[in-house]
Amino acid sequence: MASSLLFVVVLLAALSSPPPSAVLAADDDGTTHLHFFMHDVVTGSNPTAVQVIKGAGSSVVPGLAFGDTTVIDDALTETSSPTSAAVGRAQGFYMMSSQSGIVLMVCANLLLTAGDHNGSTLAVVGRDDVAADVRELSVVGGTGRFRMATGYVPVEDVQHERA
Amino acid sequence: MASSLLFVVVLLAALSSPPPSAVLAADDDGTTHLHFFMHDVVTGSNPTAVQVIKGAGSSVVPGLAFGDTTVIDDALTETSSPTSAAVGRAQGFYMMSSQSGIVLMVCANLLLTAGDHNGSTLAVVGRDDVAADVRELSVVGGTGRFRMATGYVPVEDVQHERA
Amino acid sequence: MASSLLFVVVLLAALSSPPPSAVLAADDDGTTHLHFFMHDVVTGSNPTAVQVIKGAGSSVVPGLAFGDTTVIDDALTETSSPTSAAVGRAQGFYMMSSQSGIVLMVCANLLLTAGDHNGSTLAVVGRDDVAADVRELSVVGGTGRFRMATGYVPVEDVQHERA
Repeated sequence: MASSLLFVVVLLAALSSPPPSAVLAADDDGTTHLHFFMHDVVTGSNPTAVQVIKGAGSSVVPGLAFGDTTVIDDALTETSSPTSAAVGRAQGFYMMSSQSGIVLMVCANLLLTAGDHNGSTLAVVGRDDVAADVRELSVVGGTGRFRMATGYVPVEDVQHERA
Repeated sequence: MASSLLFVVVLLAALSSPPPSAVLAADDDGTTHLHFFMHDVVTGSNPTAVQVIKGAGSSVVPGLAFGDTTVIDDALTETSSPTSAAVGRAQGFYMMSSQSGIVLMVCANLLLTAGDHNGSTLAVVGRDDVAADVRELSVVGGTGRFRMATGYVPVEDVQHERA
Repeated sequence: MASSLLFVVVLLAALSSPPPSAVLAADDDGTTHLHFFMHDVVTGSNPTAVQVIKGAGSSVVPGLAFGDTTVIDDALTETSSPTSAAVGRAQGFYMMSSQSGIVLMVCANLLLTAGDHNGSTLAVVGRDDVAADVRELSVVGGTGRFRMATGYVPVEDVQHERA
């Protein structure tokens, strides 16, 4: 992955499940907290994020246009290292949805593959203003252990120390 | 429809509406159950599912690539027969969002057109791993009788007996 | 904007936040009401809505095809005049998702930029049957002051009086 451009973000999902359907040991207040790292590999020989729409609008920044859309199947891991333990995948897309900065509309399913959450998913929609230190996405749905969950997802860029 | 490739799935929506806005006679616990069949016609002279993005990624299986996106206006019917009573439409899209299998990100509005639910909609987002016997999508919103509903949608393939 | 085709819609969001996370002064019943105008400029020299997918399906009406998809970064303002006070942006997309009329699947983030709501967002998904007098979209998520909000969004076309 020497030549790949890699964006690593940390997602902290705080989830509130409705009492009757909660099948998960959680905080006393019914809140579950998840913490993981997402690896968005946009270049190199094995990208996990591939552009599928070239926006017809004007360039917002060089090489990026309004409407550009990227499909993702990004690894979710335990630490910022891409070789750390896999905990899931983020599968969906993001779209350049601003004419005045790099702002993404994110629409993705997070599949969890580790531990008690294995097989459960979270549906996430939101606005990712990548220039902001911390962005926030919404949990709009869930399945398995996260049926009818609601929640929010603070997102931060992290420095990935290369091995 | 002799030459059309038809995927029929059964959707079982379980919906929970918030008490103050519930305008629908439902279970004592406020849950509403819906059951219907979705007809995803991808070939033939009258397809209801049409590819609009050709994914730029590698083929996951022959003929299917990461990022392939299909717009749908699929019939929802009472039984698995496409000529059975219409109960609505599923309108939206699905996108190939995995690099290692046929996994769709589904984002669609279900318009109900029959009976008490006529004119009400459900917004559905989720991950459809088509190789799994039962998949689960999320109800992320609703309108009309389903305002502010939450819920989940188990999805199964069914055999359609041709007439 | 003399030559631009402008669709102005009024959105009335009614939001219900869960009690524990409500940080917003609202009605006694926890409901917040928002009211604003969205300017969807599809032609002219400064469009805010740009087509990024040309649908492969048949024309529903002349010039509009099943699957046509438009990315938006539309202004939200206080009154129907595009020069009235800005209150936010609607950023996302809409897709022609019917084969028998102009029905859009809307998927957008509403960023609020004025007053107490500055920086908060609402994620909106829904079915916009543009021939209907009033349509209804769903609030599927929110951030900032609208964390874990649910709600609905009646949408109406309005006449815009040109200056």
